[in-house]
Amino acid sequence: MSSAFASAGDKRDAEEGDQLMPRFDAQGLVTAVVTDAGSGNLLMVAHMDAEALDLTIRTGVAHYRSRSRNALWKKGETSGALQSVRELRVDCDQDAVWIKVDVAKPDDTCHTGRASCFYRRLDLERDGGRTLVFDDNRSPVLRP
Amino acid sequence: MSSAFASAGDKRDAEEGDQLMPRFDAQGLVTAVVTDAGSGNLLMVAHMDAEALDLTIRTGVAHYRSRSRNALWKKGETSGALQSVRELRVDCDQDAVWIKVDVAKPDDTCHTGRASCFYRRLDLERDGGRTLVFDDNRSPVLRP
Repeated sequence: MSSAFASAGDKRDAEEGDQLMPRFDAQGLVTAVVTDAGSGNLLMVAHMDAEALDLTIRTGVAHYRSRSRNALWKKGETSGALQSVRELRVDCDQDAVWIKVDVAKPDDTCHTGRASCFYRRLDLERDGGRTLVFDDNRSPVLRP
Repeated sequence: MSSAFASAGDKRDAEEGDQLMPRFDAQGLVTAVVTDAGSGNLLMVAHMDAEALDLTIRTGVAHYRSRSRNALWKKGETSGALQSVRELRVDCDQDAVWIKVDVAKPDDTCHTGRASCFYRRLDLERDGGRTLVFDDNRSPVLRP
């Protein structure tokens, strides 16, 4: 598709300008960091192409590009865990966006059936920092 | 370099296991989301290769891989804005890490001279969501 966005400008335009000009990578993607608008918790990291970013802005509901399925991905379309966008930010060189969202089903953001994809932390004191500690020990929801 | 980490396992090992087995992409990178351990604010998004991730874990100071310079990047080595890692998390499929850091020079994380790289939000009500609003209007610091 022809992009719905201004072409990525020079460094100064990108960093100090007031126009959104996403810098999509070779795969046509920017990184999307998704936090809970209420708690501030990091929920997930995903990717958006121009279509997904444009739909996210226009509808107020988060859309991504699924790299594994190579398809547009309206988050929650199947699970019901839709994400309503409260704020959208862009970083200095405009290759990453940060969206703050309200989740329709807050306990079900991760496809494993957890509230966040970041449910394990490294035990930095043990095994040279190679052991992961779960902070949400619910059994995973098995989904195809 | 030979990786300092276990090879990425199958889906279940990655998602439900207690071992760090980062899933580096074709460029050998995982995405790193960096938040302020105190305020919770999103500071930056960067990338780590195996060397940078290993050094981050071993030293407790954030290291990244600079894609533009194609080099190891000890954040703050020049500016002094070193990041001390308080917690490191990994997402479900282990292709992204989340580090919570204390920054030695909190007002100077972004190379533009701001506390965070995400200093602009989209005005979703205006121009179809193409206009950016600054929330930190300090003049940029010009760095080579």
